[in-house]
Amino acid sequence: MTATVRIEDPADPRLADYTDLTDVELRRRREPAEGLFMAEGEKVIRRALEAGYPLRSMLLTDRWLDVMADVAEAADGPVYVASPELVEQVTGYHVHRGALASMQRKPLPDPAGLLAGARRVAILEAVNDHTNIGAIFRGAAALGMDAVLLSPDCADPLYRRSVKVAMGAVFSVPYARLAPWPRALETVREAGLTVLAMTPAEEAVPLHELPPADLERCAVMLGAEGPGLTRKALDAADRLVRIPMSHGVDSLNVGAAAAVAFYAVGYGHAAH
Amino acid sequence: MTATVRIEDPADPRLADYTDLTDVELRRRREPAEGLFMAEGEKVIRRALEAGYPLRSMLLTDRWLDVMADVAEAADGPVYVASPELVEQVTGYHVHRGALASMQRKPLPDPAGLLAGARRVAILEAVNDHTNIGAIFRGAAALGMDAVLLSPDCADPLYRRSVKVAMGAVFSVPYARLAPWPRALETVREAGLTVLAMTPAEEAVPLHELPPADLERCAVMLGAEGPGLTRKALDAADRLVRIPMSHGVDSLNVGAAAAVAFYAVGYGHAAH
Repeated sequence: MTATVRIEDPADPRLADYTDLTDVELRRRREPAEGLFMAEGEKVIRRALEAGYPLRSMLLTDRWLDVMADVAEAADGPVYVASPELVEQVTGYHVHRGALASMQRKPLPDPAGLLAGARRVAILEAVNDHTNIGAIFRGAAALGMDAVLLSPDCADPLYRRSVKVAMGAVFSVPYARLAPWPRALETVREAGLTVLAMTPAEEAVPLHELPPADLERCAVMLGAEGPGLTRKALDAADRLVRIPMSHGVDSLNVGAAAAVAFYAVGYGHAAH
Repeated sequence: MTATVRIEDPADPRLADYTDLTDVELRRRREPAEGLFMAEGEKVIRRALEAGYPLRSMLLTDRWLDVMADVAEAADGPVYVASPELVEQVTGYHVHRGALASMQRKPLPDPAGLLAGARRVAILEAVNDHTNIGAIFRGAAALGMDAVLLSPDCADPLYRRSVKVAMGAVFSVPYARLAPWPRALETVREAGLTVLAMTPAEEAVPLHELPPADLERCAVMLGAEGPGLTRKALDAADRLVRIPMSHGVDSLNVGAAAAVAFYAVGYGHAAH
Protein backbone atom coordinates (compact mmCIF):
# COMPACT_ATOMS: atom_id res chain seq x y z
CA MET A 1 0.00 0.00 0.00
CA THR A 2 1.07 3.51 -0.73
CA ALA A 3 1.57 5.26 2.59
CA THR A 4 -0.72 8.25 2.97
CA VAL A 5 0.96 11.59 3.51
CA ARG A 6 -0.64 14.13 5.79
CA ILE A 7 -0.44 17.70 4.50
CA GLU A 8 -0.64 20.59 6.98
CA ASP A 9 0.58 23.49 4.86
CA PRO A 10 -1.68 24.78 2.04
CA ALA A 11 1.45 26.00 0.23
CA ASP A 12 2.95 22.50 0.18
CA PRO A 13 4.37 22.12 -3.34
CA ARG A 14 3.18 18.50 -3.50
CA LEU A 15 -0.36 19.88 -3.93
CA ALA A 16 0.58 21.96 -7.00
CA ASP A 17 -1.76 19.92 -9.24
CA TYR A 18 -4.73 20.98 -7.09
CA THR A 19 -4.31 24.74 -6.89
CA ASP A 20 -6.78 27.33 -8.19
CA LEU A 21 -9.35 24.82 -9.44
CA THR A 22 -12.01 27.52 -9.70
CA ASP A 23 -9.95 29.59 -12.16
CA VAL A 24 -11.41 28.13 -15.35
CA GLU A 25 -9.22 30.12 -17.72
CA LEU A 26 -6.05 29.16 -15.91
CA ARG A 27 -6.94 25.48 -15.55
CA ARG A 28 -8.12 25.28 -19.14
CA ARG A 29 -4.58 26.19 -20.25
CA ARG A 30 -2.65 24.46 -17.50
CA GLU A 31 -4.19 21.01 -17.50
CA PRO A 32 -3.57 19.99 -21.13
CA ALA A 33 -0.14 21.69 -21.03
CA GLU A 34 0.87 19.68 -17.96
CA GLY A 35 -0.80 16.51 -19.19
CA LEU A 36 -3.15 16.16 -16.25
CA PHE A 37 -6.84 16.36 -15.45
CA MET A 38 -8.92 16.33 -12.28
CA ALA A 39 -11.23 13.52 -11.24
CA GLU A 40 -13.61 14.52 -8.44
CA GLY A 41 -15.59 12.21 -6.20
CA GLU A 42 -15.40 8.49 -5.60
CA LYS A 43 -17.38 7.37 -8.64
CA VAL A 44 -15.52 9.49 -11.15
CA ILE A 45 -12.10 8.56 -9.73
CA ARG A 46 -12.94 4.86 -9.92
CA ARG A 47 -14.17 5.22 -13.49
CA ALA A 48 -11.04 7.09 -14.56
CA LEU A 49 -8.85 4.34 -13.10
CA GLU A 50 -10.94 1.60 -14.70
CA ALA A 51 -10.52 3.38 -18.01
CA GLY A 52 -6.76 3.07 -17.59
CA TYR A 53 -5.78 6.64 -16.79
CA PRO A 54 -2.68 6.63 -14.56
CA LEU A 55 -3.02 8.30 -11.16
CA ARG A 56 -0.53 11.10 -10.47
CA SER A 57 -1.77 11.61 -6.92
CA MET A 58 -4.91 11.66 -4.82
CA LEU A 59 -6.07 14.24 -2.25
CA LEU A 60 -8.57 13.06 0.36
CA THR A 61 -10.21 14.51 3.42
CA ASP A 62 -10.10 12.21 6.45
CA ARG A 63 -13.73 11.19 6.07
CA TRP A 64 -12.99 9.73 2.64
CA LEU A 65 -9.92 7.76 3.60
CA ASP A 66 -11.96 4.67 4.47
CA VAL A 67 -14.20 4.79 1.41
CA MET A 68 -11.19 5.12 -0.87
CA ALA A 69 -8.95 2.69 1.02
CA ASP A 70 -8.85 0.11 -1.77
CA VAL A 71 -8.09 2.76 -4.37
CA ALA A 72 -5.37 4.22 -2.16
CA GLU A 73 -3.91 0.76 -1.65
CA ALA A 74 -3.66 0.08 -5.37
CA ALA A 75 -2.50 3.60 -6.21
CA ASP A 76 0.75 4.15 -8.06
CA GLY A 77 1.00 7.75 -6.95
CA PRO A 78 1.07 9.39 -3.52
CA VAL A 79 -2.11 9.75 -1.48
CA TYR A 80 -2.38 13.04 0.41
CA VAL A 81 -4.71 13.53 3.34
CA ALA A 82 -5.79 16.93 4.59
CA SER A 83 -8.56 18.73 6.44
CA PRO A 84 -11.55 19.99 4.46
CA GLU A 85 -10.44 23.54 5.31
CA LEU A 86 -6.98 23.01 3.84
CA VAL A 87 -8.44 21.38 0.72
CA GLU A 88 -10.71 24.39 0.30
CA GLN A 89 -7.78 26.77 0.71
CA VAL A 90 -5.78 24.98 -1.96
CA THR A 91 -8.52 24.35 -4.51
CA GLY A 92 -10.54 27.51 -3.93
CA TYR A 93 -13.84 25.78 -3.24
CA HIS A 94 -15.53 23.46 -0.80
CA VAL A 95 -15.00 19.96 -2.20
CA HIS A 96 -18.29 18.28 -1.25
CA ARG A 97 -17.22 14.91 -2.49
CA GLY A 98 -14.07 14.95 -0.36
CA ALA A 99 -11.91 13.13 -2.89
CA LEU A 100 -9.86 14.54 -5.74
CA ALA A 101 -7.42 12.78 -7.98
CA SER A 102 -4.93 14.22 -10.40
CA MET A 103 -4.88 11.88 -13.37
CA GLN A 104 -2.42 11.60 -16.21
CA ARG A 105 -3.82 12.19 -19.70
CA LYS A 106 -3.22 9.59 -22.37
CA PRO A 107 -2.18 10.47 -25.92
CA LEU A 108 -5.30 10.93 -28.06
CA PRO A 109 -5.83 8.21 -30.64
CA ASP A 110 -5.62 8.85 -34.36
CA PRO A 111 -9.07 9.54 -35.87
CA ALA A 112 -8.45 7.09 -38.70
CA GLY A 113 -7.84 4.32 -36.18
CA LEU A 114 -11.07 5.05 -34.34
CA LEU A 115 -13.03 5.23 -37.58
CA ALA A 116 -11.78 1.94 -38.97
CA GLY A 117 -14.00 -0.20 -36.78
CA ALA A 118 -16.75 2.30 -36.06
CA ARG A 119 -20.38 2.00 -37.09
CA ARG A 120 -21.62 5.21 -35.51
CA VAL A 121 -19.65 8.23 -34.40
CA ALA A 122 -20.45 11.71 -33.16
CA ILE A 123 -18.65 14.74 -34.57
CA LEU A 124 -18.75 18.02 -32.65
CA GLU A 125 -17.89 21.41 -34.11
CA ALA A 126 -16.97 24.30 -31.81
CA VAL A 127 -18.87 23.00 -28.80
CA ASN A 128 -16.87 25.12 -26.38
CA ASP A 129 -19.08 24.84 -23.33
CA HIS A 130 -17.93 22.28 -20.76
CA THR A 131 -21.47 21.48 -19.61
CA ASN A 132 -22.62 20.78 -23.15
CA ILE A 133 -19.54 18.68 -23.96
CA GLY A 134 -20.23 16.63 -20.85
CA ALA A 135 -23.93 16.20 -21.65
CA ILE A 136 -23.16 15.13 -25.23
CA PHE A 137 -20.55 12.59 -24.11
CA ARG A 138 -22.99 11.14 -21.59
CA GLY A 139 -25.55 10.68 -24.36
CA ALA A 140 -22.98 9.34 -26.81
CA ALA A 141 -21.78 6.72 -24.33
CA ALA A 142 -25.25 5.77 -23.10
CA LEU A 143 -26.65 5.42 -26.59
CA GLY A 144 -23.83 3.34 -27.98
CA MET A 145 -21.82 5.69 -30.17
CA ASP A 146 -18.43 4.14 -30.96
CA ALA A 147 -16.39 7.33 -30.85
CA VAL A 148 -16.53 11.11 -30.63
CA LEU A 149 -14.49 13.34 -32.94
CA LEU A 150 -13.92 16.97 -31.98
CA SER A 151 -13.12 20.01 -34.09
CA PRO A 152 -10.00 21.80 -32.79
CA ASP A 153 -12.07 24.52 -31.08
CA CYS A 154 -14.21 22.21 -28.94
CA ALA A 155 -13.87 22.39 -25.17
CA ASP A 156 -11.83 19.82 -23.26
CA PRO A 157 -13.82 16.67 -22.40
CA LEU A 158 -11.47 16.05 -19.46
CA TYR A 159 -12.05 19.42 -17.84
CA ARG A 160 -13.54 18.91 -14.35
CA ARG A 161 -16.97 20.30 -15.25
CA SER A 162 -17.22 18.18 -18.43
CA VAL A 163 -16.30 15.04 -16.54
CA LYS A 164 -18.84 15.80 -13.82
CA VAL A 165 -21.74 16.47 -16.18
CA ALA A 166 -20.83 13.37 -18.19
CA MET A 167 -20.82 11.32 -14.96
CA GLY A 168 -17.49 9.93 -16.12
CA ALA A 169 -18.79 8.89 -19.56
CA VAL A 170 -15.92 10.88 -21.13
CA PHE A 171 -13.70 7.97 -20.06
CA SER A 172 -15.72 5.27 -21.76
CA VAL A 173 -16.13 6.58 -25.30
CA PRO A 174 -12.90 6.99 -27.22
CA TYR A 175 -12.40 10.42 -28.72
CA ALA A 176 -9.98 12.24 -30.97
CA ARG A 177 -9.41 15.68 -32.45
CA LEU A 178 -10.24 16.12 -36.13
CA ALA A 179 -7.86 18.61 -37.79
CA PRO A 180 -7.51 20.55 -39.98
CA TRP A 181 -11.14 21.55 -39.76
CA PRO A 182 -13.30 20.94 -41.72
CA ARG A 183 -10.97 19.33 -44.27
CA ALA A 184 -10.37 16.33 -42.02
CA LEU A 185 -14.03 15.38 -42.45
CA GLU A 186 -12.70 13.71 -45.60
CA THR A 187 -11.11 11.13 -43.31
CA VAL A 188 -14.57 10.26 -42.02
CA ARG A 189 -15.99 9.86 -45.48
CA GLU A 190 -12.96 7.88 -46.67
CA ALA A 191 -13.55 5.50 -43.76
CA GLY A 192 -16.94 4.77 -45.31
CA LEU A 193 -19.21 6.72 -42.97
CA THR A 194 -22.04 8.95 -44.15
CA VAL A 195 -21.71 12.40 -42.58
CA LEU A 196 -25.10 13.61 -41.28
CA ALA A 197 -25.17 17.29 -40.32
CA MET A 198 -27.80 18.19 -37.71
CA THR A 199 -29.47 21.51 -38.49
CA PRO A 200 -32.89 23.08 -37.97
CA ALA A 201 -32.94 24.08 -41.68
CA GLU A 202 -36.28 23.43 -43.38
CA GLU A 203 -34.70 21.67 -46.35
CA ALA A 204 -33.05 19.08 -44.12
CA VAL A 205 -34.41 15.54 -44.03
CA PRO A 206 -36.33 14.68 -40.84
CA LEU A 207 -34.39 12.21 -38.75
CA HIS A 208 -37.11 9.57 -38.96
CA GLU A 209 -37.20 9.73 -42.75
CA LEU A 210 -33.53 9.05 -43.35
CA PRO A 211 -32.95 6.32 -45.90
CA PRO A 212 -31.64 3.17 -44.15
CA ALA A 213 -28.55 3.20 -46.36
CA ASP A 214 -27.45 6.41 -44.62
CA LEU A 215 -27.53 4.66 -41.28
CA GLU A 216 -25.44 1.61 -41.99
CA ARG A 217 -22.34 3.47 -40.91
CA CYS A 218 -22.75 7.13 -40.10
CA ALA A 219 -21.39 10.16 -38.29
CA VAL A 220 -23.80 12.53 -36.54
CA MET A 221 -22.33 16.05 -36.67
CA LEU A 222 -23.52 18.72 -34.20
CA GLY A 223 -22.60 22.37 -33.67
CA ALA A 224 -22.67 24.62 -30.63
CA GLU A 225 -25.87 25.60 -28.85
CA GLY A 226 -27.17 28.72 -30.57
CA PRO A 227 -25.09 29.15 -33.72
CA GLY A 228 -25.20 25.48 -34.71
CA LEU A 229 -22.92 24.13 -37.44
CA THR A 230 -20.94 26.57 -39.59
CA ARG A 231 -21.59 26.93 -43.30
CA LYS A 232 -18.37 25.10 -44.12
CA ALA A 233 -19.27 22.16 -41.91
CA LEU A 234 -22.74 21.95 -43.48
CA ASP A 235 -21.18 22.08 -46.94
CA ALA A 236 -18.84 19.24 -46.09
CA ALA A 237 -21.67 16.92 -44.97
CA ASP A 238 -23.31 14.21 -47.04
CA ARG A 239 -26.75 15.09 -45.83
CA LEU A 240 -28.55 17.75 -43.76
CA VAL A 241 -30.77 16.23 -41.12
CA ARG A 242 -33.25 17.82 -38.73
CA ILE A 243 -35.16 16.71 -35.67
CA PRO A 244 -38.90 17.04 -36.40
CA MET A 245 -40.32 19.99 -34.42
CA SER A 246 -43.87 20.73 -33.25
CA HIS A 247 -45.84 23.38 -31.34
CA GLY A 248 -43.79 26.24 -32.80
CA VAL A 249 -40.66 25.21 -30.86
CA ASP A 250 -37.50 25.82 -32.87
CA SER A 251 -34.95 23.66 -31.10
CA LEU A 252 -33.94 21.39 -28.24
CA ASN A 253 -30.92 22.08 -26.06
CA VAL A 254 -27.83 20.51 -27.60
CA GLY A 255 -27.60 17.70 -25.03
CA ALA A 256 -31.17 16.58 -25.69
CA ALA A 257 -30.82 17.05 -29.46
CA ALA A 258 -27.68 14.93 -29.45
CA ALA A 259 -29.37 12.17 -27.43
CA VAL A 260 -32.35 12.09 -29.80
CA ALA A 261 -30.06 11.92 -32.85
CA PHE A 262 -27.87 9.21 -31.30
CA TYR A 263 -30.93 7.17 -30.40
CA ALA A 264 -32.43 7.61 -33.85
CA VAL A 265 -29.35 6.50 -35.78
CA GLY A 266 -28.71 3.67 -33.37
CA TYR A 267 -32.14 2.29 -32.63
CA GLY A 268 -34.80 4.33 -34.41
CA HIS A 269 -35.07 2.05 -37.41
CA ALA A 270 -34.18 -1.21 -35.77
CA ALA A 271 -37.46 -2.76 -34.81
CA HIS A 272 -39.79 -2.93 -37.75
CA MET B 1 -52.37 52.73 -26.04
CA THR B 2 -51.94 52.15 -22.36
CA ALA B 3 -50.03 55.13 -20.97
CA THR B 4 -46.74 54.08 -19.39
CA VAL B 5 -46.29 54.92 -15.74
CA ARG B 6 -42.89 55.94 -14.47
CA ILE B 7 -42.01 54.49 -11.10
CA GLU B 8 -39.44 56.27 -8.91
CA ASP B 9 -40.02 54.61 -5.55
CA PRO B 10 -38.97 50.96 -5.08
CA ALA B 11 -41.64 50.61 -2.39
CA ASP B 12 -44.42 51.65 -4.81
CA PRO B 13 -47.25 49.19 -4.10
CA ARG B 14 -48.04 48.93 -7.80
CA LEU B 15 -44.89 46.82 -8.11
CA ALA B 16 -46.05 44.29 -5.51
CA ASP B 17 -46.15 41.48 -8.11
CA TYR B 18 -42.42 41.94 -8.78
CA THR B 19 -40.96 41.86 -5.27
CA ASP B 20 -38.47 39.31 -3.94
CA LEU B 21 -38.19 37.33 -7.19
CA THR B 22 -35.05 35.60 -5.96
CA ASP B 23 -36.79 34.11 -2.93
CA VAL B 24 -37.76 30.78 -4.51
CA GLU B 25 -39.61 29.45 -1.48
CA LEU B 26 -41.68 32.58 -1.10
CA ARG B 27 -42.50 32.92 -4.80
CA ARG B 28 -43.29 29.21 -5.09
CA ARG B 29 -46.10 29.73 -2.58
CA ARG B 30 -47.14 33.24 -3.53
CA GLU B 31 -47.52 32.93 -7.29
CA PRO B 32 -50.08 30.12 -7.49
CA ALA B 33 -51.91 31.56 -4.45
CA GLU B 34 -52.22 34.95 -6.13
CA GLY B 35 -52.91 33.47 -9.54
CA LEU B 36 -49.93 35.06 -11.26
CA PHE B 37 -46.64 34.08 -12.84
CA MET B 38 -43.62 35.95 -14.18
CA ALA B 39 -42.65 36.14 -17.83
CA GLU B 40 -39.12 37.45 -18.35
CA GLY B 41 -37.63 38.81 -21.53
CA GLU B 42 -39.18 39.84 -24.83
CA LYS B 43 -39.53 36.38 -26.37
CA VAL B 44 -41.13 34.76 -23.35
CA ILE B 45 -43.55 37.65 -22.79
CA ARG B 46 -44.67 37.54 -26.41
CA ARG B 47 -45.15 33.78 -26.25
CA ALA B 48 -47.20 34.02 -23.06
CA LEU B 49 -49.48 36.61 -24.66
CA GLU B 50 -49.82 34.57 -27.85
CA ALA B 51 -50.83 31.61 -25.70
CA GLY B 52 -53.68 33.72 -24.32
CA TYR B 53 -52.45 34.47 -20.81
CA PRO B 54 -53.85 37.85 -19.69
CA LEU B 55 -51.31 40.51 -18.75
CA ARG B 56 -51.65 41.93 -15.23
CA SER B 57 -48.86 44.46 -15.75
CA MET B 58 -45.47 44.90 -17.35
CA LEU B 59 -42.26 46.37 -15.92
CA LEU B 60 -39.70 47.69 -18.38
CA THR B 61 -36.42 49.51 -18.18
CA ASP B 62 -36.17 52.51 -20.53
CA ARG B 63 -33.99 50.64 -23.02
CA TRP B 64 -36.77 48.10 -23.60
CA LEU B 65 -39.61 50.56 -24.06
CA ASP B 66 -39.04 50.76 -27.82
CA VAL B 67 -38.62 47.02 -28.36
CA MET B 68 -41.81 46.31 -26.45
CA ALA B 69 -43.81 49.27 -27.82
CA ASP B 70 -46.30 47.12 -29.73
CA VAL B 71 -46.85 44.87 -26.73
CA ALA B 72 -47.32 47.90 -24.46
CA GLU B 73 -49.78 49.40 -26.92
CA ALA B 74 -51.94 46.29 -26.99
CA ALA B 75 -51.63 45.67 -23.25
CA ASP B 76 -54.71 45.42 -21.08
CA GLY B 77 -52.77 46.10 -17.90
CA PRO B 78 -50.54 48.99 -16.83
CA VAL B 79 -46.98 49.34 -18.17
CA TYR B 80 -44.46 50.52 -15.60
CA VAL B 81 -41.12 52.03 -16.56
CA ALA B 82 -38.21 52.26 -14.19
CA SER B 83 -34.43 52.46 -14.06
CA PRO B 84 -32.43 49.19 -14.06
CA GLU B 85 -31.31 50.08 -10.52
CA LEU B 86 -34.86 50.37 -9.25
CA VAL B 87 -35.88 47.13 -10.99
CA GLU B 88 -32.95 45.40 -9.31
CA GLN B 89 -33.96 46.82 -5.91
CA VAL B 90 -37.50 45.54 -6.30
CA THR B 91 -36.83 42.12 -7.80
CA GLY B 92 -33.59 41.36 -5.98
CA TYR B 93 -31.51 40.69 -9.08
CA HIS B 94 -30.17 42.36 -12.19
CA VAL B 95 -32.77 41.75 -14.87
CA HIS B 96 -30.57 41.28 -17.95
CA ARG B 97 -33.47 41.06 -20.31
CA GLY B 98 -34.93 44.37 -19.10
CA ALA B 99 -38.55 43.30 -19.46
CA LEU B 100 -40.76 41.53 -16.94
CA ALA B 101 -44.45 40.83 -17.15
CA SER B 102 -46.80 39.66 -14.46
CA MET B 103 -49.23 37.32 -16.16
CA GLN B 104 -52.55 35.94 -14.96
CA ARG B 105 -52.76 32.15 -14.66
CA LYS B 106 -55.61 30.35 -16.38
CA PRO B 107 -57.59 27.58 -14.71
CA LEU B 108 -55.94 24.23 -15.46
CA PRO B 109 -57.94 22.01 -17.80
CA ASP B 110 -59.49 18.75 -16.70
CA PRO B 111 -57.20 15.76 -17.46
CA ALA B 112 -60.07 13.82 -19.03
CA GLY B 113 -60.66 16.63 -21.49
CA LEU B 114 -57.01 16.71 -22.53
CA LEU B 115 -56.89 12.94 -22.85
CA ALA B 116 -59.98 12.65 -25.05
CA GLY B 117 -58.26 13.82 -28.22
CA ALA B 118 -54.67 12.95 -27.31
CA ARG B 119 -52.48 10.41 -29.09
CA ARG B 120 -49.36 10.90 -27.00
CA VAL B 121 -49.02 12.43 -23.58
CA ALA B 122 -46.26 12.77 -21.00
CA ILE B 123 -46.89 12.01 -17.34
CA LEU B 124 -44.46 13.30 -14.72
CA GLU B 125 -44.24 12.00 -11.17
CA ALA B 126 -42.61 14.14 -8.46
CA VAL B 127 -40.37 16.09 -10.82
CA ASN B 128 -39.85 18.87 -8.34
CA ASP B 129 -36.92 20.61 -9.94
CA HIS B 130 -37.80 23.70 -12.01
CA THR B 131 -34.93 23.21 -14.43
CA ASN B 132 -35.95 19.64 -15.15
CA ILE B 133 -39.64 20.55 -15.52
CA GLY B 134 -38.63 23.23 -18.02
CA ALA B 135 -36.37 20.89 -19.97
CA ILE B 136 -39.02 18.18 -20.15
CA PHE B 137 -41.69 20.64 -21.35
CA ARG B 138 -39.32 21.93 -24.02
CA GLY B 139 -38.83 18.37 -25.27
CA ALA B 140 -42.52 17.52 -25.01
CA ALA B 141 -43.51 20.55 -27.08
CA ALA B 142 -40.72 20.16 -29.62
CA LEU B 143 -41.38 16.48 -30.16
CA GLY B 144 -45.12 16.77 -30.55
CA MET B 145 -46.59 15.48 -27.31
CA ASP B 146 -50.24 16.49 -27.06
CA ALA B 147 -50.32 17.15 -23.32
CA VAL B 148 -48.40 16.84 -20.06
CA LEU B 149 -49.99 15.48 -16.90
CA LEU B 150 -48.35 16.19 -13.54
CA SER B 151 -48.55 14.34 -10.26
CA PRO B 152 -49.54 16.69 -7.41
CA ASP B 153 -45.94 16.97 -6.14
CA CYS B 154 -44.38 18.15 -9.41
CA ALA B 155 -42.86 21.63 -9.55
CA ASP B 156 -44.75 24.52 -11.13
CA PRO B 157 -44.24 24.74 -14.91
CA LEU B 158 -45.01 28.46 -14.74
CA TYR B 159 -42.31 29.26 -12.21
CA ARG B 160 -39.83 31.74 -13.75
CA ARG B 161 -36.96 29.23 -13.96
CA SER B 162 -39.15 26.53 -15.57
CA VAL B 163 -40.44 28.99 -18.17
CA LYS B 164 -36.92 30.17 -18.96
CA VAL B 165 -35.44 26.69 -19.40
CA ALA B 166 -38.45 25.67 -21.49
CA MET B 167 -37.95 28.77 -23.68
CA GLY B 168 -41.66 29.40 -23.25
CA ALA B 169 -42.66 25.89 -24.37
CA VAL B 170 -44.68 25.56 -21.13
CA PHE B 171 -47.22 27.85 -22.82
CA SER B 172 -47.67 25.73 -25.92
CA VAL B 173 -48.35 22.26 -24.53
CA PRO B 174 -51.53 21.98 -22.48
CA TYR B 175 -51.02 20.48 -19.05
CA ALA B 176 -53.07 19.40 -16.07
CA ARG B 177 -52.63 17.95 -12.59
CA LEU B 178 -53.44 14.28 -12.13
CA ALA B 179 -54.89 13.61 -8.67
CA PRO B 180 -55.27 11.62 -6.54
CA TRP B 181 -51.93 10.03 -7.31
CA PRO B 182 -51.43 7.40 -8.60
CA ARG B 183 -55.09 6.38 -8.68
CA ALA B 184 -55.91 8.99 -11.32
CA LEU B 185 -53.72 7.04 -13.76
CA GLU B 186 -56.92 5.05 -14.26
CA THR B 187 -58.28 8.10 -16.11
CA VAL B 188 -55.43 7.77 -18.58
CA ARG B 189 -56.09 4.11 -19.17
CA GLU B 190 -59.84 4.65 -19.41
CA ALA B 191 -59.15 7.22 -22.12
CA GLY B 192 -57.58 4.39 -24.11
CA LEU B 193 -53.89 5.23 -23.70
CA THR B 194 -51.23 2.65 -22.87
CA VAL B 195 -49.22 3.80 -19.85
CA LEU B 196 -45.49 3.28 -20.46
CA ALA B 197 -43.32 3.68 -17.34
CA MET B 198 -39.72 4.70 -18.05
CA THR B 199 -37.28 2.88 -15.77
CA PRO B 200 -33.70 1.61 -15.98
CA ALA B 201 -34.89 -1.80 -14.69
CA GLU B 202 -33.40 -4.75 -16.58
CA GLU B 203 -36.73 -6.46 -17.05
CA ALA B 204 -38.17 -3.44 -18.87
CA VAL B 205 -38.69 -3.60 -22.64
CA PRO B 206 -36.16 -1.54 -24.63
CA LEU B 207 -37.84 1.46 -26.19
CA HIS B 208 -37.03 0.34 -29.74
CA GLU B 209 -38.59 -3.07 -29.17
CA LEU B 210 -42.01 -1.87 -28.05
CA PRO B 211 -44.85 -3.57 -29.91
CA PRO B 212 -46.47 -1.07 -32.31
CA ALA B 213 -49.84 -1.62 -30.61
CA ASP B 214 -48.43 0.07 -27.49
CA LEU B 215 -47.67 3.16 -29.48
CA GLU B 216 -50.99 3.84 -31.14
CA ARG B 217 -52.03 5.98 -28.22
CA CYS B 218 -49.70 6.12 -25.27
CA ALA B 219 -48.55 7.98 -22.19
CA VAL B 220 -44.83 8.19 -21.39
CA MET B 221 -44.42 8.33 -17.61
CA LEU B 222 -41.18 9.68 -16.07
CA GLY B 223 -39.99 10.15 -12.50
CA ALA B 224 -37.54 12.55 -10.90
CA GLU B 225 -33.83 12.57 -11.69
CA GLY B 226 -32.20 10.13 -9.31
CA PRO B 227 -35.03 8.21 -7.63
CA GLY B 228 -37.06 7.70 -10.80
CA LEU B 229 -40.65 6.46 -10.62
CA THR B 230 -42.03 5.19 -7.32
CA ARG B 231 -43.06 1.58 -6.85
CA LYS B 232 -46.73 2.51 -6.92
CA ALA B 233 -46.38 4.38 -10.20
CA LEU B 234 -44.49 1.46 -11.75
CA ASP B 235 -47.20 -0.92 -10.52
CA ALA B 236 -49.91 1.22 -12.10
CA ALA B 237 -48.28 1.19 -15.54
CA ASP B 238 -49.19 -1.09 -18.44
CA ARG B 239 -45.57 -1.67 -19.37
CA LEU B 240 -42.07 -0.96 -18.07
CA VAL B 241 -39.86 0.55 -20.73
CA ARG B 242 -36.16 1.37 -20.73
CA ILE B 243 -33.81 3.34 -22.94
CA PRO B 244 -31.12 0.97 -24.23
CA MET B 245 -27.80 1.73 -22.50
CA SER B 246 -24.21 1.08 -23.59
CA HIS B 247 -20.63 1.56 -22.38
CA GLY B 248 -21.57 0.90 -18.74
CA VAL B 249 -23.56 4.14 -18.46
CA ASP B 250 -26.62 3.72 -16.26
CA SER B 251 -28.76 6.70 -17.24
CA LEU B 252 -29.26 9.94 -19.13
CA ASN B 253 -30.30 13.15 -17.43
CA VAL B 254 -34.07 13.37 -17.23
CA GLY B 255 -34.36 16.06 -19.91
CA ALA B 256 -32.42 13.98 -22.43
CA ALA B 257 -34.19 10.75 -21.42
CA ALA B 258 -37.56 12.43 -21.87
CA ALA B 259 -36.60 13.75 -25.31
CA VAL B 260 -35.42 10.32 -26.44
CA ALA B 261 -38.62 8.67 -25.20
CA PHE B 262 -40.85 11.33 -26.78
CA TYR B 263 -39.01 10.98 -30.09
CA ALA B 264 -39.21 7.20 -29.96
CA VAL B 265 -42.95 7.00 -29.33
CA GLY B 266 -43.65 9.77 -31.81
CA TYR B 267 -41.29 9.01 -34.67
CA GLY B 268 -39.15 6.01 -33.87
CA HIS B 269 -41.29 3.49 -35.65
CA ALA B 270 -42.70 5.70 -38.36
CA ALA B 271 -40.43 5.19 -41.31
CA HIS B 272 -40.06 1.53 -42.18
